Amino acid sequence: MEIVIPLYDRFTALDAVGPYEVLSRLPGARVRFAAARVGPLRTENAMLALTADVALADVPEPDVLVVPGGLGTRALLEDEPLLDWIRHAHARSQWTTSVCTGSLLLAAAGILTGLEATTHWLAMDLLGELGARPVARRVVEQGKVVTAAGVSSGIDMALVLAAHIAGEDVAQAIQLGIEYDPQPPFAAGSEHAAPERIVSLVRSLAQQHA
Amino acid sequence: MEIVIPLYDRFTALDAVGPYEVLSRLPGARVRFAAARVGPLRTENAMLALTADVALADVPEPDVLVVPGGLGTRALLEDEPLLDWIRHAHARSQWTTSVCTGSLLLAAAGILTGLEATTHWLAMDLLGELGARPVARRVVEQGKVVTAAGVSSGIDMALVLAAHIAGEDVAQAIQLGIEYDPQPPFAAGSEHAAPERIVSLVRSLAQQHA
Repeated sequence: MEIVIPLYDRFTALDAVGPYEVLSRLPGARVRFAAARVGPLRTENAMLALTADVALADVPEPDVLVVPGGLGTRALLEDEPLLDWIRHAHARSQWTTSVCTGSLLLAAAGILTGLEATTHWLAMDLLGELGARPVARRVVEQGKVVTAAGVSSGIDMALVLAAHIAGEDVAQAIQLGIEYDPQPPFAAGSEHAAPERIVSLVRSLAQQHA
Repeated sequence: MEIVIPLYDRFTALDAVGPYEVLSRLPGARVRFAAARVGPLRTENAMLALTADVALADVPEPDVLVVPGGLGTRALLEDEPLLDWIRHAHARSQWTTSVCTGSLLLAAAGILTGLEATTHWLAMDLLGELGARPVARRVVEQGKVVTAAGVSSGIDMALVLAAHIAGEDVAQAIQLGIEYDPQPPFAAGSEHAAPERIVSLVRSLAQQHA
């Protein structure tokens, strides 16, 4: 099974690496990181580079497509070569998935029109403007199209996907292998759980960076 | 604040990227990925390369040290240049931390002798043989030395660390920023929670790869 994770400038690393860490452990799976050009791609803070080992043009028909998010998505909403690659891959994929604002790229490609989908909680309005029906769930399944909420949600999404692909025992073995028994120190992981002052703080910081 | 994450051949990507995603969001923090030699380093399955932007020798005194785990640790338990770098960094650090089998390297460097520490659940015995007192908790704090359990636990550890470094409001803002409201699809994330057949399956697979 060929799994492709497209990278671009200013992606969010955990969006890509969470699903990679789960899906690479599926029996027979090969995860490939791809980009417009082969080589290192930097995250939005420029502190980390992941290598794209193949060009997108060389992996046109993955079985599974996982589109990560990041601040870089905003510059790609009209990038026709990337959107065409996504459309072509989606037409033949078994699963088309995204994490965080990766769903904005699926939406810009026309894949989410009229479908329920999710994204980072700060990007819900933009997702709606791009034609999807935004819903505040962590993992949203619409047939073969699966979208996940912000950043860390890609781990949950990938485990759901692993169960669909290889069965629940394999998915549970992967979950145990990565010891995914999360114990967040605070109840601050969602807009609704976090204290109001924290939500306001993050909103104002995001507006400064927008 | 200078945060260094050392890489080596056959590390586990999520061990490194989970803490990076949290700690890079601390105000004033700079995360640097380092290795014996600058350039790309591949994970244990070879499907992903992260770039080491600096040589370990060029970042001898980080404020925070985060040692990731991976199958590659086993080949480094007597690697004196790396262990010396860890010892030197630890002598001057504000925080010395590890994720998963990264704690085996801290132990091999002599840092965990007599201290409580944790690691991936499959490596607990080896951690004890290296002089630590293994405990099955997700995050173990012993003064400035903080060790985390397997792979995904680095996210929890980094949020605990973020609260120590910058206060609980900042840590909560980071948790909300990465939307860390985990919803694992199964109760299979620890040796004690997972069904016995899943634990046996993962143990036998690990023995095949050891």
